[in-house]
Amino acid sequence: MKLFHWMRKGSVTVPKGFLATGLYSGIKKSGKTDSCLIYSEAPCIAAASFTVNRAKAWPVLYSMKAIQNPVHRAILANSGNANCFNGLLGKKAVEESVEVLHQSLDISRGKILVASTGVIGRTLPIENFKKGIPEMVRMLSKSGDSLAAEGILTTDTVTKELAIEFRIGNKWVRLGGIGKGSGMAHPKMATMLCFITTDLAIRKSLLQSSLREAVRLTFNRMSIDNDMSTNDTVYVLANGLAENMPIEAQDEDYAKFVTILTQFCKEMARKLVEDGEGVTKVCEIKIEKARNEKQAEDLARQVANSMLVKTMFTGADPNWGRIIGALGSTEIPINWNELEIYFDNLRVFGNGRGRLSRFQNVRKILRKKFFTLTIVLHQGKAEISFLTSDLTSKYVRINSSYTS
Amino acid sequence: MKLFHWMRKGSVTVPKGFLATGLYSGIKKSGKTDSCLIYSEAPCIAAASFTVNRAKAWPVLYSMKAIQNPVHRAILANSGNANCFNGLLGKKAVEESVEVLHQSLDISRGKILVASTGVIGRTLPIENFKKGIPEMVRMLSKSGDSLAAEGILTTDTVTKELAIEFRIGNKWVRLGGIGKGSGMAHPKMATMLCFITTDLAIRKSLLQSSLREAVRLTFNRMSIDNDMSTNDTVYVLANGLAENMPIEAQDEDYAKFVTILTQFCKEMARKLVEDGEGVTKVCEIKIEKARNEKQAEDLARQVANSMLVKTMFTGADPNWGRIIGALGSTEIPINWNELEIYFDNLRVFGNGRGRLSRFQNVRKILRKKFFTLTIVLHQGKAEISFLTSDLTSKYVRINSSYTS
Repeated sequence: MKLFHWMRKGSVTVPKGFLATGLYSGIKKSGKTDSCLIYSEAPCIAAASFTVNRAKAWPVLYSMKAIQNPVHRAILANSGNANCFNGLLGKKAVEESVEVLHQSLDISRGKILVASTGVIGRTLPIENFKKGIPEMVRMLSKSGDSLAAEGILTTDTVTKELAIEFRIGNKWVRLGGIGKGSGMAHPKMATMLCFITTDLAIRKSLLQSSLREAVRLTFNRMSIDNDMSTNDTVYVLANGLAENMPIEAQDEDYAKFVTILTQFCKEMARKLVEDGEGVTKVCEIKIEKARNEKQAEDLARQVANSMLVKTMFTGADPNWGRIIGALGSTEIPINWNELEIYFDNLRVFGNGRGRLSRFQNVRKILRKKFFTLTIVLHQGKAEISFLTSDLTSKYVRINSSYTS
Repeated sequence: MKLFHWMRKGSVTVPKGFLATGLYSGIKKSGKTDSCLIYSEAPCIAAASFTVNRAKAWPVLYSMKAIQNPVHRAILANSGNANCFNGLLGKKAVEESVEVLHQSLDISRGKILVASTGVIGRTLPIENFKKGIPEMVRMLSKSGDSLAAEGILTTDTVTKELAIEFRIGNKWVRLGGIGKGSGMAHPKMATMLCFITTDLAIRKSLLQSSLREAVRLTFNRMSIDNDMSTNDTVYVLANGLAENMPIEAQDEDYAKFVTILTQFCKEMARKLVEDGEGVTKVCEIKIEKARNEKQAEDLARQVANSMLVKTMFTGADPNWGRIIGALGSTEIPINWNELEIYFDNLRVFGNGRGRLSRFQNVRKILRKKFFTLTIVLHQGKAEISFLTSDLTSKYVRINSSYTS
């Protein structure tokens, strides 16, 4: 039996009791939707995962405190400006926007979480944003999820929306989410936002631990470039309206939820990488038979971030030597004679050397939009999966003139 | 008084007793010079620095042993093929080429050092290379240094040749070198070769320690992309024909030589980065007032390897937030309110925020071919210098079709 099923459409408003919307408030020069509001009609518990970059934006610093409150009701976000390293005005901008939402929604300030994404170091046009907030409160609706999804995009080309349904006990539970990725999506979650809603009933500490596990296995195992943002944030709001028997311990239901949340985040991560700046193909790197997960992840990250490997994907150029070069550049000992490398099911390296006869077949695989690179170490039993992308001239073009 | 002066022209044959040449032996498809021989008429002592990549090419594995012999006479190198991960034929290719040179030059096998650079995983056309060796022996000459410099290039667009002259005691001493960089030039010396000759008289252990120090401060502190090669090698041959009082201890002459060798390698490193694949500008990152050199180097490397910082240089886009993002992504604590960031002499960040008014002036600096990025931490007294480059669409083009 399948653990869950994907919904045909919808995202953060699929779970019971959630409303959302998005608006152009006058932050982006482009005139595109730049503000987002998600609201729950019932009190929620919330969990979060923030960037581990030591340089943190104002909304991150603010929300790291706010997340500790027992109850939450809303997420307020903007794109087009990271509200980061722009002086104390930036701190004030967060406080003022929270104040306006507090008054417009009539919920206490402590129940509001915030997030921003965009250029660092610019003053947020706070008056514009503040004017937009009451307008967004009026617009909140069940069908506003796509607008909300638009409101957090920067150089993304499409919105990222997902929703699923699953059973806990004898109740149907729903989980929905919107995401924003694009540049800088690195291990450790660089410049990505993901807001997840669910009507599951679960204890706050367990929601937090399940999110931590899901993020570790998904958003922290993807890479578009090698950078980590000041603003990365994942939120989960859970309002319990599914009326399932609340998850109160690390029991079977809890394990099931962790698995489902991980699958959900994995699919979201795939969408983020797929729409990464200038990305034309996604590669899932699988490290198999490693000594332990830590070593497997370090090796995967080294390969995933190698510009030479990424440009090899770009040109569908089966230069597997670059994979060897990346694998060799960590501190981890590798037995080169045991090592096997596969593209999809085709072995390109084994017994200490490559298989040149298969050159044309490898090219065919590397020309696909999605393929797998499997690296079998024969050193132990650990295995992990890591998402990466190619590196194109378009990435360079986009990022060489982002603020101008 | 200046420690040394640069020679107008010439490189490895400037020191007394050294001859060199280069030849097209039939390794490169392009028909360009692909073989290089450097020879000393007098016995040399030699020092080397090899890649720390755990994946090592056959000539590296071979020379790591050969370097331990007390006396050397020649360096034999090829480009166009890395002779790496191509099975036992690759090992045999090294042995056979050494055998041919041993016979042609009438020097013992143990006095020969080797190096290769190029594509990984291909069989070296050893018969072609072997035929070229006696031909190169016949061609050896004082004026063959430029041919030798050509013989080690891959995607480099120009040869890298340098020579200097300095005094040790009452004798003039000469030091010359050829280099090859281009792709993958990373910290830890990725894909670079540098062969240095000198007529200095010095003890082998001291030549080795001075090279270690010079490499640490120069070739290990540069970055074009984030990759590390299987073939990186720096050799120094010293034949003592300058007849200086031999350097036998870590005395004043030794300290002087370390400084000179470091300056020489720094200039070579600059040449390598400048001619990196698709590079249009070189940035010297200076980290100042750091707690210690280790932290300074880690921070510099993080900034130097950030694709977002590199593309910011490409577009002369003063998005200093990306520098903050890179600095924050290490484990090193930074006091953001103390931090200062300068492009050349222009401060773009201080007191916890950027200076937007200076946008146009920063653009002017970022449009130059060479500029300095100074990051002042105000945490201690350590300072280091690190070379990096921009990242261009041309890099992507070159590297997406290297083997094809």
